[in-house]
This record gives sequence, structure tokens and C-alpha cells, in this order.
Amino acid sequence: QIVAQLHLALAPKMLAGKQILITAGPTWESLDPARGLSNRASGKQGFALAQACAEAGAQVQLISGPSQEATPPGVLRVNVTSAQEMLEATLRALATPTDLFIANAAVADHRPALQSTQKLPKTALSESLTLIVNPDIVSTVNQHALRPRVIVAFAAETRDHLASARNKAAQKGADIIVVNDISHNETGMGAESNACSIIEGSDLTEIPTCSKIDLARHLIRHIAENHFALKVTEHHGTVTNSHS
Amino acid sequence: QIVAQLHLALAPKMLAGKQILITAGPTWESLDPARGLSNRASGKQGFALAQACAEAGAQVQLISGPSQEATPPGVLRVNVTSAQEMLEATLRALATPTDLFIANAAVADHRPALQSTQKLPKTALSESLTLIVNPDIVSTVNQHALRPRVIVAFAAETRDHLASARNKAAQKGADIIVVNDISHNETGMGAESNACSIIEGSDLTEIPTCSKIDLARHLIRHIAENHFALKVTEHHGTVTNSHS
Repeated sequence: QIVAQLHLALAPKMLAGKQILITAGPTWESLDPARGLSNRASGKQGFALAQACAEAGAQVQLISGPSQEATPPGVLRVNVTSAQEMLEATLRALATPTDLFIANAAVADHRPALQSTQKLPKTALSESLTLIVNPDIVSTVNQHALRPRVIVAFAAETRDHLASARNKAAQKGADIIVVNDISHNETGMGAESNACSIIEGSDLTEIPTCSKIDLARHLIRHIAENHFALKVTEHHGTVTNSHS
Repeated sequence: QIVAQLHLALAPKMLAGKQILITAGPTWESLDPARGLSNRASGKQGFALAQACAEAGAQVQLISGPSQEATPPGVLRVNVTSAQEMLEATLRALATPTDLFIANAAVADHRPALQSTQKLPKTALSESLTLIVNPDIVSTVNQHALRPRVIVAFAAETRDHLASARNKAAQKGADIIVVNDISHNETGMGAESNACSIIEGSDLTEIPTCSKIDLARHLIRHIAENHFALKVTEHHGTVTNSHS
């Protein structure tokens, strides 16, 4: 925590004054008070992204599904459970003009059609569970009147991952799509480390396996330099466009 | 952790030499590498029970589904994911003669019929999820050649909880059933505190709301006094039967 506070104080303020909204963690789609559908996301990567954005000087709101992770210093956290609640919290947050939206949460694609306030007897679930498709948060944000300037979507994939991720980005209207290959144990959901491919149109940037906080800092620096650059960094030397 | 070590050293050794097997946490029933069915159990109560048993001098094996809880000192922990894996680990543990089996885990009643090693496209899950009934661990242990001397089952209920729990105990062959009412936020799944009703045949003992470790210590003391008493405790005064 002291180390986190030092990073917060000492990191370059590349995103000073920017308003950033991040979703993180899994969603929990309740079937009854005990049971539900979910996924294996821990929230670690999304919380690390919130930390990296706060370190870079941004105002950060983190909308998190159920997660055991500690809220990083300087981050405003809102807890939600289901995909529907996450969408509602996201739409409320968009009332504040937002520079960057990072959709890192692993939002359940479906929810049970039946949601009981009483625990269901085993026999009530005997053969199948009827599902309803959840709203797509990235698509909804993309069509919003106050669309954030830059939308970053995450895709967790196990096969043909770049091709299917490019399709997802195009469909949903994300400017950047960050692809995790979750078929390896050392990266992705629940792991301590991660690796990703950053797709921006036809450009591809790879971040090799590293800790989730290092990946977050690399990714946020990449986004800041390519989409929010206010000045040319000296040791870097390339001129990046300012969209501000 | 230092406090836990002190409790371990200083608590009365009411279960010295006893072999205890405990299941804890939720199970995760995988649909693909990201998605699955689960429940809201945190593992906190089961881990507290393992701690209380170790404090009481027992040899404790803890079979845990996915949980963020730290393993209590002096406890042998085995990690599993699904109900099927939990059953297999339980049967392996029963090869060592077991005095007490505490089935605290919130085992999923069903698993998806389809379990894919690749992440399924959203459309593959469009309307319903076909379910298969999981094996019942308590019933299986009850019918085992090396049945533990005492079987304690947990029931999480929201309605008519004592009546339905008594039926469950009878069906499954548990000697003791411990009932949590999970309809209140301050007790049961994921909460820091808990309360329970202990049913042993026609006897009913209530433990009012307290921390999960206090509930564990009360419950283990109750079980030790009523089922494993080697001596009469002085301040207690009642003569309890020894089944040893």
C-alpha cells in the first residue's frame, strides 16, 4: 500500500485531468440467493488498470463486479453484481463527460431467465436452465450521446483470438481492443500475470507476459501516448498526435 | 496469524488424535474456460471450522473449492474445483479412517452437460443450458465402507428451513445437520458473521449471530462434547456419553 502510494505520487502525470471509467471483475447472474452463472475473472487486471490510470493523474471511476481485490488509492469504486447493474452504473457514470472508457470486466453474455428470491429446490433445476442475452455494455456506450473519446474493449479468447477479437471490436465500436489468450494458465483469468495483444485498426502491438500491474502501466502509457499525447516524451522521440 | 497460532497452542485439546475431514467453499462447474455455474459461498465458514478443529487438537484435512481464504495453521489443504473433483478428493481422504466428516462446502447440485475446452461463442449458449445432476457427497460418504463415525452436513436455506433441513439430513444419512438461513445479509454466504441451528434427531440447538470463527468454535465444542467426549468438562457439569 505504501509502494502504491509512492507510485501514485511519483509516476509521470500523462493523463492529468482526464476522466476515466473502467469496468472490472466478473458479473454474477443470480439464479437464486445461492446459485448463479459467472466466470473466472478475479478483477486483478481491471484494478491494476485503475491503479495505473490514477498514477498517471487521471480521475478514475472503477465499476467492479464481485471481487476480493483492494481498491487502489485515488480510485472511486462502485460495486455491482449483475451485467444489468454494471450497465446502469456505467450509464450513470457517463453523465460526467468521459475521456476514456476501458471495458475490462468479464460481463456474462447471458443471465438465467428465472431469478428466484428463494433458494430453488434441486428438482426445479433438473434438466435445463433457460437463458436471456444480457445487454452489451460496449455497444451501448458506443451509441451513447456522451460517447467517451476513446473506448477500449477487452476480449478473452482461446482460439483464433486475433481474428475473432477484430470482429468484436468492429461490431461493438471499440477504438482499441485488447486481447488476452486465456488458454494458458499463467495469463488471463485469475492468474497473477498476463500478456496481451493491442489491436487498433490494422495496428498490432504485443505486450509479453508480465505482472498485471506492469501490463496495466504499459497499456495505459501506450494509450496515453497514442490517443492523449499532450507533449512528445523526450526519450521516446516520435511525434504523436494530440487529440485534445 | 500470530493470534491464530496462539489459539492453536492454547485451546483445550478436546479432539486430540481425531482425524477430521472438512469440505469448504463453493464448487465451480465449468461450461468453458471462462464461464461456469457456481454459488456465493466464500469458504469463510469452512475454513473457520478447520481452524477450530486444529485448535482442538485434531488432524484436519480441508478440501476446498475456489476460495480466497488463507489456510489456517496446522491444516492440510487440498484444492479442487468441481463437485466431481471434490467427491474424488473426499473418497481419497476416506482411505485414512476418519472420526468426523464436516460437509460444509456449497456443492453445486448440477453441472452443465456440455463442458468445452475452448471458449464458446455467445450464440452457442443462446437459449438454454442443459444440466446434469452432480453426485451427492454426503450420501456417498454415508454409504462408504469406511464411513466416518460422525457426519455433519450443512444446509443453506431461505424458507421453512428447519423442516426441509431435517428431511435432507434423513435422506443423506447425516448425524447432525447445521442449518444456515441465507435470507439475511448479515449471515450465511459471503458474510463475515453467521448464525445456525444444529439439528440432531429431534434435538435443536441454536447458535445466535456471531463471527464465523466464534460460530465454528461453539459448533466444534458442541460436537466434541456430544459425540467425542472423553471426559466431563468441570464447569459444564453434565455427563455426556463417550462413543470412543
